[in-house]
Amino acid sequence: MTALTDNEQVEQANTTFYEAMERGDLDSLSGLWLESTGDEISCVHPGWPVLTGRGDVLRSYALIMANTEYIQFFLTDVTVSVSADTALVTCTENILSGGPAEESGELGPLVGQLVVATNVFRRTPEGWKLWAHHGSPVLTETDDEPDDETAA
Amino acid sequence: MTALTDNEQVEQANTTFYEAMERGDLDSLSGLWLESTGDEISCVHPGWPVLTGRGDVLRSYALIMANTEYIQFFLTDVTVSVSADTALVTCTENILSGGPAEESGELGPLVGQLVVATNVFRRTPEGWKLWAHHGSPVLTETDDEPDDETAA
Repeated sequence: MTALTDNEQVEQANTTFYEAMERGDLDSLSGLWLESTGDEISCVHPGWPVLTGRGDVLRSYALIMANTEYIQFFLTDVTVSVSADTALVTCTENILSGGPAEESGELGPLVGQLVVATNVFRRTPEGWKLWAHHGSPVLTETDDEPDDETAA
Repeated sequence: MTALTDNEQVEQANTTFYEAMERGDLDSLSGLWLESTGDEISCVHPGWPVLTGRGDVLRSYALIMANTEYIQFFLTDVTVSVSADTALVTCTENILSGGPAEESGELGPLVGQLVVATNVFRRTPEGWKLWAHHGSPVLTETDDEPDDETAA
């Protein structure tokens, strides 16, 4: 069995992060974030202000998961850059999601969303852990999704 | 003269980055970004896709500066976290900006904008340099700017 390179380990940690979101697995997700010991984690969901510290960040995920019946991430343009014990990942999150329908037990309409993310990881004895996540909506034109909006 | 702490140096580098934008000083701005040697820089402007590498990133700033007659950043909620040779900064950019008016020589209407940013710096012999910048519009309600929009 060949050991994974740093870049491969980081890409795996990044994939695991999105898989925990897809499963709505808050426990697993909590374990992927850095345990703060002075260095606070930070998180920006698309359109949200900055959240700092494990308390606020994990509560936000609990809230999002409670309002998300279904979510799937198709990651594209994944780039990984590692420097010593820090890694920078950028990727495009092609998201398909749906909230609970008005009628209980049914799934609401599915919505597609294009989000770009910058994820910063730190190397720890327990593997690469998230230090920061910043996701934002893409409003510019792309080949996939023609749109009248343009960024300034 | 007391030497600055790491946190103070990083906060200073972060301020210098926004001051270069305010002056429309592309040369100075270029010098604040990490010189890529394998590790590519990345940049996300509000609503934009990810830009990777000095070429694309610096061209985007040239484009933005060409279309911006006036821009001022009031930074709030600045948090700095340093780990070895990497630093993570989050801040709120309270932006006041204006493009060129239709009539040459005049300034177009000023627009206020609320953006949050995650900036990642690396320590180099020439000081702290930007490795990544991610800015995104805030669409949720805040105390300062009541708004009907809410993020999902």
